[in-house]
Amino acid sequence: MSTATQTPAASKLVTIEALTEFTMASLQRLGVSEADARTTADVLVTTDAWGVFTHGTKGLRGYLRRLKAGGLRAEARPEIATQGPAWAIVNGQSALAMVTSVLAMRTAIAKAKTCGIAYVGVRNSCHYGAAGYYASLAADAGLIGMSMANDVPSVAAPGSRGAITGSNPISYAIPAGKHRSILLDMSVATVAGGKVYAARTRGEAIPNTWLVGADGKPTTDPSGYPQIGALQPAAGHKGYGIALLIEALSGVLSGASVTWQVGNWLWDDGTKPTDHGAAFIALDVNTIMPAAEFTRRVEALVDEIHSAPRADGVDRLFVPGEMEWEKHARATREGIALPSDVVESLRDSATMAGLKLEDYL
Amino acid sequence: MSTATQTPAASKLVTIEALTEFTMASLQRLGVSEADARTTADVLVTTDAWGVFTHGTKGLRGYLRRLKAGGLRAEARPEIATQGPAWAIVNGQSALAMVTSVLAMRTAIAKAKTCGIAYVGVRNSCHYGAAGYYASLAADAGLIGMSMANDVPSVAAPGSRGAITGSNPISYAIPAGKHRSILLDMSVATVAGGKVYAARTRGEAIPNTWLVGADGKPTTDPSGYPQIGALQPAAGHKGYGIALLIEALSGVLSGASVTWQVGNWLWDDGTKPTDHGAAFIALDVNTIMPAAEFTRRVEALVDEIHSAPRADGVDRLFVPGEMEWEKHARATREGIALPSDVVESLRDSATMAGLKLEDYL
Repeated sequence: MSTATQTPAASKLVTIEALTEFTMASLQRLGVSEADARTTADVLVTTDAWGVFTHGTKGLRGYLRRLKAGGLRAEARPEIATQGPAWAIVNGQSALAMVTSVLAMRTAIAKAKTCGIAYVGVRNSCHYGAAGYYASLAADAGLIGMSMANDVPSVAAPGSRGAITGSNPISYAIPAGKHRSILLDMSVATVAGGKVYAARTRGEAIPNTWLVGADGKPTTDPSGYPQIGALQPAAGHKGYGIALLIEALSGVLSGASVTWQVGNWLWDDGTKPTDHGAAFIALDVNTIMPAAEFTRRVEALVDEIHSAPRADGVDRLFVPGEMEWEKHARATREGIALPSDVVESLRDSATMAGLKLEDYL
Repeated sequence: MSTATQTPAASKLVTIEALTEFTMASLQRLGVSEADARTTADVLVTTDAWGVFTHGTKGLRGYLRRLKAGGLRAEARPEIATQGPAWAIVNGQSALAMVTSVLAMRTAIAKAKTCGIAYVGVRNSCHYGAAGYYASLAADAGLIGMSMANDVPSVAAPGSRGAITGSNPISYAIPAGKHRSILLDMSVATVAGGKVYAARTRGEAIPNTWLVGADGKPTTDPSGYPQIGALQPAAGHKGYGIALLIEALSGVLSGASVTWQVGNWLWDDGTKPTDHGAAFIALDVNTIMPAAEFTRRVEALVDEIHSAPRADGVDRLFVPGEMEWEKHARATREGIALPSDVVESLRDSATMAGLKLEDYL
């Protein structure tokens, strides 16, 4: 969990409860049921509590816009279209992707408890926020969880002039006993597009590993992004290769749209479904190995990393997700320090929902 | 599949059949059954045919040495220790890892055909060669396959002074209809240790993204490697995060050794098992979606990539594995051009087995 963490310049301190209440109220004003609003708010607010502000309630205005336009349907019920002992395909019916994704991961968890492992593919979904939330659901239930999704292309392949795959997030979570779950949430690009865009806004050059320009070659010039250029895949052919696995499991095998057929949830026609795909995999630890033994083994691994020799000047070694869980604990105690761009976005959300932000935050 | 492909300086052209025959004969001379020798030879020679010479028959002398010393047991039969509908744990019993791994992937394939997906973990195994071979077995049978393994630590984590995880290979293969399977085989390190060692041998500096030195900081000096330094993880925290997922599925959940408990298959006491872990996952496409529909969809994705705009000076865009399958086709027609270091290693193998290399190649 680290592509999008950021230290806010100016921020507003809000409680998890207040932010949840505002998010739920906004969604309910657009016809979303209380239960679905709660599910969606928990995804978005948990993400903010992790400090991953690019994927939390900042997205709310985008989801509200689509709910208003009809591309997302407030009353839709995602359903299991086909299934077997250790697999299912969920048709999201253009419901909020958080609602569909939670159903899908819960289905994977239930099937994994019987079979050991399960795969659930999703089609007719939309932007689902932070991949890590769903993986974390599985870990909270004692399972190893994986979550991934496709998206409209923004990332180049080695040698391509433009984008070939989405930034295709992938996440896993591993229950870790006395520690919070080991939790990785990454995109297949070298950096988030937001970092390139921020450099453009500041008029700064970027490292030549972030972007390819109009000629498909690495560039230090972000001035045309995102109209010109594509993100570079992380570690070259490795990031590109992982992107295609995600595309296959999320898009191809689920029956969802693939690459350029996926709608852009922010910029494309809000009246049309985006038809994102996603995939969820759960492995039930306790079916395969006594949970206490697994816990002992994974705790030993984490402890070993924590006590390993550090490079000069390094205070701590972290396992994936550890920084985010510490932010989460602080947010639970002290509130979330929302960056100003998130607060501005929530003001837009309030306007769209006919609410006063000050009544909540 | 690209970490270790190389253009040989001086090479010897051999047929797949002759190299297979030599590999089988060497193994059989050390007590391995004809069937197990055939399995092992197919893994190693297929890898050479892909051009991945670091992981092919070059490893044979290492396996023979362990067979002689007793750390690998020629007569051992890997067995399914525990299992359920969509999972199993295989105890390799210190048999050749290729024999154990093929059994494990075949078990995953059979269970996935019933359940949709299956996981098979392996313990008491050893260095299994190229991860891609086993993923490819699944794709040849119409399934999506994944293969991964742990190893003795050689790769740093962000901020660590030394190695934290193995280079932990991971591979997937996706059946692709009229095309050969999409096939990725990667390690979690920025580059293979062999590339660092080769630079040391040539007395050259290396890019500062390959290695951390004795102080845990990036270095351009390979002169102490591998005694001093650790490989950098690919894409920093992303490669490190993937390494830990592989460690969890291959080592922790299977009951195998984890990180520093894994034996070094080349350098550690040959009389002792290395107790490597591995994990194999198969998804049966045809259980989840009609195979013809999946084929149409994946072919469209490959065709889209092939016809996408290319950067200036780039002739072709490749999907993962495409270069290796073209080498494989050429090797089948014309033979494999074995680099001189592989030929030298085969000479050692022949000596160990009491064979004359010239009788075969």
